[in-house]
Amino acid sequence: MVGNDGRPVGVALLGCGVVGSQVVRLLTEQADELAARVGAPLRLVGVAVRRPQRHPDVPADLITTDAAGLVAREDVDVVVELVGGIEPVRGLLLTALKNGRSVVSANKALLAEDGAALAAAAAESGADLYYEASVAGAIPLLRPIQQSLAGDRIVRVAGIVNGTTNFILSAMASTGANYAEALEEAGRLGYAEADPTADVDGYDAASKAAILASLAFHTRVTADDVHREGIRDVTAADIAAARALGCTVKLLAICEQVEGPAGPSVSARVHPAMIPRSHPLASVSGAYNAVFIEAAAAGQLMFYGQGAGGPQTASAVLGDLVAAARNRVIGGRGPRDSAHADLPIVAMGDTRTRYHVSLDVSDRAGVLAQVAGVFAEHGVSIATVRQEGRNGTGLEDGVARDEGDGARDARDATLVIVTHSAPDAALAATVDALTGLDAVQGVAGVLRVEGLGRPVTELGGVS
Amino acid sequence: MVGNDGRPVGVALLGCGVVGSQVVRLLTEQADELAARVGAPLRLVGVAVRRPQRHPDVPADLITTDAAGLVAREDVDVVVELVGGIEPVRGLLLTALKNGRSVVSANKALLAEDGAALAAAAAESGADLYYEASVAGAIPLLRPIQQSLAGDRIVRVAGIVNGTTNFILSAMASTGANYAEALEEAGRLGYAEADPTADVDGYDAASKAAILASLAFHTRVTADDVHREGIRDVTAADIAAARALGCTVKLLAICEQVEGPAGPSVSARVHPAMIPRSHPLASVSGAYNAVFIEAAAAGQLMFYGQGAGGPQTASAVLGDLVAAARNRVIGGRGPRDSAHADLPIVAMGDTRTRYHVSLDVSDRAGVLAQVAGVFAEHGVSIATVRQEGRNGTGLEDGVARDEGDGARDARDATLVIVTHSAPDAALAATVDALTGLDAVQGVAGVLRVEGLGRPVTELGGVS
Repeated sequence: MVGNDGRPVGVALLGCGVVGSQVVRLLTEQADELAARVGAPLRLVGVAVRRPQRHPDVPADLITTDAAGLVAREDVDVVVELVGGIEPVRGLLLTALKNGRSVVSANKALLAEDGAALAAAAAESGADLYYEASVAGAIPLLRPIQQSLAGDRIVRVAGIVNGTTNFILSAMASTGANYAEALEEAGRLGYAEADPTADVDGYDAASKAAILASLAFHTRVTADDVHREGIRDVTAADIAAARALGCTVKLLAICEQVEGPAGPSVSARVHPAMIPRSHPLASVSGAYNAVFIEAAAAGQLMFYGQGAGGPQTASAVLGDLVAAARNRVIGGRGPRDSAHADLPIVAMGDTRTRYHVSLDVSDRAGVLAQVAGVFAEHGVSIATVRQEGRNGTGLEDGVARDEGDGARDARDATLVIVTHSAPDAALAATVDALTGLDAVQGVAGVLRVEGLGRPVTELGGVS
Repeated sequence: MVGNDGRPVGVALLGCGVVGSQVVRLLTEQADELAARVGAPLRLVGVAVRRPQRHPDVPADLITTDAAGLVAREDVDVVVELVGGIEPVRGLLLTALKNGRSVVSANKALLAEDGAALAAAAAESGADLYYEASVAGAIPLLRPIQQSLAGDRIVRVAGIVNGTTNFILSAMASTGANYAEALEEAGRLGYAEADPTADVDGYDAASKAAILASLAFHTRVTADDVHREGIRDVTAADIAAARALGCTVKLLAICEQVEGPAGPSVSARVHPAMIPRSHPLASVSGAYNAVFIEAAAAGQLMFYGQGAGGPQTASAVLGDLVAAARNRVIGGRGPRDSAHADLPIVAMGDTRTRYHVSLDVSDRAGVLAQVAGVFAEHGVSIATVRQEGRNGTGLEDGVARDEGDGARDARDATLVIVTHSAPDAALAATVDALTGLDAVQGVAGVLRVEGLGRPVTELGGVS
């Protein structure tokens, strides 16, 4: 693997869409500078595409539809994969790695589903496997986690890793729009695809969470291990409720190392959550991404930038390409994916979270006692309760009114409850049981609350 | 350099103060985990200190006062240097590198003064030279610049890289305190040293700017190349003036690649500046550090975290140590410092900046015309002017009053002027010339204004 006798480093590009065409452009425009950094010229030897006629900007002699043939060429040192999806890419990349070709990929779905097989193939042949562009676009994130923090113990990685959903939630927060309106706006401005499922249902973020958790905790985590909830059910009322609590709603990818009696385990999940407006992640709006990392020694770190876009993602791809090419020229290997810790994954039901619950109730004596009793039965401790009159009746902030058994007219009210942390299953069961109470007319909203390392007291609370 | 036959990687520690003692602790507590990541155990073979009796926590048989003897030991693979200062450390590290020992250092002063010699010694012997901890403590910054952005073209690195001065400026902004009061507060809370010169006069930040500029622009920049102004002269009035402009005052380390008729060059400077409150750097307060990077393809990125502290800095040191040790075990080398671009350094006088100038003037007819004339003579274009009565007299926002040659009583007023960008020397000469005007009673404040990539219009302006 060491040295390539000064010859150019051959690069095969699979896929030439929004990102790939930027990679081709930058490889050309910055050829001299890249050669200086690598120690040898980078030579693009072929570009595999499905429809050759669609790429007038790429020299015709480089275009091929035979991806397998391109990957197998003797003059290819590094394969850059920007096709996406599982097949046929998986087979192509496994072959490339087994044959000692290094691979740079932005394919989060493949890495999250079968990263282990790719890593094993790379380890076996001594080739490099880099995929910085698969998570959070241009933001340097995987290299810091894998290398800069290699001497530390990461306890939490929590971030906004999907620009489409962040745009939608930001729009809902700033304009009061409901979900459907904000989604339509996102589509009109090019921030949402015609079929937004992968984004709004959290599949994209779940793949990224799997990749982040795998690297942060040295444990193989796949997308299937990640609990996933999207933002379709987030309402304008949820956003307003968050604001009343000093919070904002974000779709978060959260990866935590959890200490339990049986030892450490990993929680990886994607769901909307209220976070304090004072948290650095709260002010990340629009299509931006940001990831917050907490490590035992380093403390709290945050990385911020553009999570998508052709040039932005191409920047991350080229950074990986320079690293892989440099290893070819001067010898050396990138860091290996390591799953040596092999921690168990916590089921979502056993993950400790906090809930914000809005209940429409009859405003009559004893209701709060009944409701509080249901929480107590499930072992869930209440942090704060606020009662709001729904028909312009008075409300008392901070501590709810509960006037014992004195007779009063039943009126409509909303009880807003924030819990302390409890197993997610207990919280869900509590909400289920609440719907069975006579006095509860309906559950107006349920959202998790994440302090992200901040003490509960920052959110206020009754003691 | 390749392979060490499975034997432990020997680590020599030079210096065992606040950071060093944390490195020793983490090496012990996380020994198994670090061994898994490196591929071999890390073995601390010696700790060189000046006063052995002061380190009861370190096993006595590891302590030595003979740093040169320790560095020369056969069983040392990596030297971790946490002593600081230029001599005798420079000689020790040069010897270590020439003998093929890899070096991990947090020594910003040495790297900024003589990084070229260290890099050359490392390149010659094939050893690694890592110094992530020298800039911005725990924040992964040098590795992202050197590696993650290796395929991109960085155009600007601007950051808050000194916690002491950021604490002082944050305190001045939040309490209205003047500089002396805020410095005293910082000292009392342990954020400022007894002799705060290195921090408040910008020496510390200038060293970091030199390191950042060198890596970002592939050009050897030393601390002497960095224009340096500290915060001693920042007044409570400056802070108030910044607020009135929608800005806040930060001590910034700014490294820019400047395009000129003669080709690109590098500007590296440290000075206080007003930045828009809407900029992500504006909300970085207290002892936190943050660095904003702008690259041609990646766009705007920001890195945020704790810039100092024992465990935090130790995290960065250990990340480098794992990388250096891993290279010993499996073969390979870290990225070389490269000065291949070798760009010229722009003198501060030729650097384009913007000034905010507060002038105490007689509020009489024709003053603004006179003042504006001085700016024009120096080729400096004015972006905004605001005139404020100083004795409770009326004022007009946005556009100054200037009533031609009508006779009026002279009253006191303040003219607040923000310029468009111009060569710094022209701006300084303008301020000098203004003090010579009869109508100008004094220059109340001068501060640079940095948009940091944002258009001038965000700061408002008269057209």
